[in-house]
Amino acid sequence: MRIETICTGDELLTGLTSDTNSRSFQSELLDRTGLTVRRSVVVGDDRDDIIEALNAAAERCDVVLVSGGLGPTTDDLTAECAAKAAGVPLVESAEAYAHLVDRFRQRGMTLTDNNRRQAQVPQGSEVVLNAEGTAPMFVQRRGTCVFFYVPGVPREYRHLVGAHVVPRIAAMAKNTDVRKLALLKVINFPESHLDAAIRPLIPQHPSVTFGYRTRPPENHLKVLAVGSTDDEARRALDAAVAAALPLLGERLFARDDETMAGAVLRLLREKKQYLALAESCTGGLMASLLTAESGASASFYGAAVTYLEEAKTRWAQVPEGLLGQFGAVSTECAEAMASGVRTSTGATWGLSTTGWAGPTGGDAQNPVGTVYVGLAGPGVSRVEKHRFHGDRERVKSFAAYTALDLLRRTLEGATS
Amino acid sequence: MRIETICTGDELLTGLTSDTNSRSFQSELLDRTGLTVRRSVVVGDDRDDIIEALNAAAERCDVVLVSGGLGPTTDDLTAECAAKAAGVPLVESAEAYAHLVDRFRQRGMTLTDNNRRQAQVPQGSEVVLNAEGTAPMFVQRRGTCVFFYVPGVPREYRHLVGAHVVPRIAAMAKNTDVRKLALLKVINFPESHLDAAIRPLIPQHPSVTFGYRTRPPENHLKVLAVGSTDDEARRALDAAVAAALPLLGERLFARDDETMAGAVLRLLREKKQYLALAESCTGGLMASLLTAESGASASFYGAAVTYLEEAKTRWAQVPEGLLGQFGAVSTECAEAMASGVRTSTGATWGLSTTGWAGPTGGDAQNPVGTVYVGLAGPGVSRVEKHRFHGDRERVKSFAAYTALDLLRRTLEGATS
Repeated sequence: MRIETICTGDELLTGLTSDTNSRSFQSELLDRTGLTVRRSVVVGDDRDDIIEALNAAAERCDVVLVSGGLGPTTDDLTAECAAKAAGVPLVESAEAYAHLVDRFRQRGMTLTDNNRRQAQVPQGSEVVLNAEGTAPMFVQRRGTCVFFYVPGVPREYRHLVGAHVVPRIAAMAKNTDVRKLALLKVINFPESHLDAAIRPLIPQHPSVTFGYRTRPPENHLKVLAVGSTDDEARRALDAAVAAALPLLGERLFARDDETMAGAVLRLLREKKQYLALAESCTGGLMASLLTAESGASASFYGAAVTYLEEAKTRWAQVPEGLLGQFGAVSTECAEAMASGVRTSTGATWGLSTTGWAGPTGGDAQNPVGTVYVGLAGPGVSRVEKHRFHGDRERVKSFAAYTALDLLRRTLEGATS
Repeated sequence: MRIETICTGDELLTGLTSDTNSRSFQSELLDRTGLTVRRSVVVGDDRDDIIEALNAAAERCDVVLVSGGLGPTTDDLTAECAAKAAGVPLVESAEAYAHLVDRFRQRGMTLTDNNRRQAQVPQGSEVVLNAEGTAPMFVQRRGTCVFFYVPGVPREYRHLVGAHVVPRIAAMAKNTDVRKLALLKVINFPESHLDAAIRPLIPQHPSVTFGYRTRPPENHLKVLAVGSTDDEARRALDAAVAAALPLLGERLFARDDETMAGAVLRLLREKKQYLALAESCTGGLMASLLTAESGASASFYGAAVTYLEEAKTRWAQVPEGLLGQFGAVSTECAEAMASGVRTSTGATWGLSTTGWAGPTGGDAQNPVGTVYVGLAGPGVSRVEKHRFHGDRERVKSFAAYTALDLLRRTLEGATS
């Protein structure tokens, strides 16, 4: 089965934005059906280019996923081009229009003529309502080729692709093989080392594919097992995962959908313990990662984002004299922040970061990228010094993950 | 001038790797020549697909940048396909071979027959030696179309594109139009309304293209002006921006590279004022957005991420009785958090959020998605109640931007 994608949008051709949608489709398609995309095209908001791309794909493909250009504005040309390329008129879908009216009413907003354009689809196409947005998805058949048109807004795209597009492709492929996927998420394990460690497993697991995915500072080992039955695929997956786990060791922080913050909160919840943060160079990122998880309040007290020195004293009880003597970027300060926020809040654990995120700051002893991570807890007082490379965002992100991982490893190692 | 890119590589079609090369070319091309790419294609390591893509591009384009597939392994097919598509044989370039021999000798490595393949180029093409690697770049003319072939290794790609490809395109483009781009960033201005507001400007600005980009909760108006000289393009851009500004009003929060957090920090810095946050439902996201900006410490005191009620009392001085009487998700609590964090830290401004990010929580009066935003400052005490839709991440993000925007509008309106 030949599958291609076409993405529309001038902004995808200026270097401003990358087409993350196609990547998420490719990955979900492979995981759930074993199929791969054969070509991925990005075209600008230009009628001739869009129509030419649609017609060329129609000749080659069994399935084409087209995204973007379904918004309400005048540079949204996809529905119009889909109709023109197929030689049919645009018609208003009563179902799509009712959905639009409904969504606008729920939000107390006025439906403009512009918005109403979003209910127009090429005659003869099937409408699939979009639970995440106003523009519907539509499915158009041209000869033996099926076109799926979905909005480019990432949340809407991911929802429609996962709930409708991939399952339909899987049904069309009539592939009876069953696929099972496991994601093993590691930290501090570069992709090339991961590859070297895992490579010896390949000949022993012929029905399994090992792949890698980098989401700095995380690396993910993808284990994809194929079998003729659910049970066969499951057994192949379990055997491969069991063989991989000892090679990953404590660098494995989570599996499948769990995140680093989710793993930390789960461990805290299991022990009925609370965490309080004192964040300096991570500037609220650790708190934001933790509060991205539903139910965080069961184990997360809160965070003092102590950006200025005075804030470190006020909220994390760091003695002024200590700051004067050792400076804010120091072992002593990280330790005092962690124990100060722990003691003053009564939380089980206090976790702290202090460092230079850059691009300015730093000195010979603690250059830009230096981060101290402190942990205080029952019988525990630890400080680690790290040096991260890259821009401000990267240093913040590596520091936040490294601090959460210090707590995770401590919680996993604890026997109580 | 019509420019397209073709990237080859199976790994770019599995979701594992993204094509960052094309993005860096697009952005360098736009910055240095004002030109944009019209189409960007990714194809797998398949002879038929590569040849078909090359031939289709040859018919449409003035310039095609082809990358990837120039390595020494058997799945590196690009040079062979470039020759076949043009109907010429592959020949060994003496210059490229000498460069290969040289690089291997310098590194004390043995040159294999595989490696020697990298010196083969389509007959008649011009070789450009690659200072960063073994595979040369080559330039092939087919009719009026120029093909640049470069290796896909990002370091080699960026070097060759920057040093050779973009300068040659700039030279070819001599006397063509100059383009200038402005981004006007708005909030609380849905794309469809933005389009309706801007549409009347289109006939008055014939050399300007208006486009839209959605980055929820932000919307961006893209203004792209074309002129025969730098000055003409600049004047067209300035006129279009001047006409658009009154239509955007106070919903315009930043321009070009500036972010919402950057705008808030700039306004605070100009007034030499400090901000302290009390974040509940945004859980550190506001602090993280502010600290993503270099130099935040000039105007950002810190944030109390008061996730539990006790934290609201400890760090933001919210009276326990108030929490008992009105609850944490209330006008009274948002007001008390903002004024409490302001007064206790001595910051000029205190900004707070409290609400239900979901998916659990909420009640009839304050369902999931309800967020109270509080602002306390010199002679200012404001609370806004909002209702956001979507998942937890979306509610957090809309709440954080809405709160920062309340402060931004207040700072811009203030005359002091």
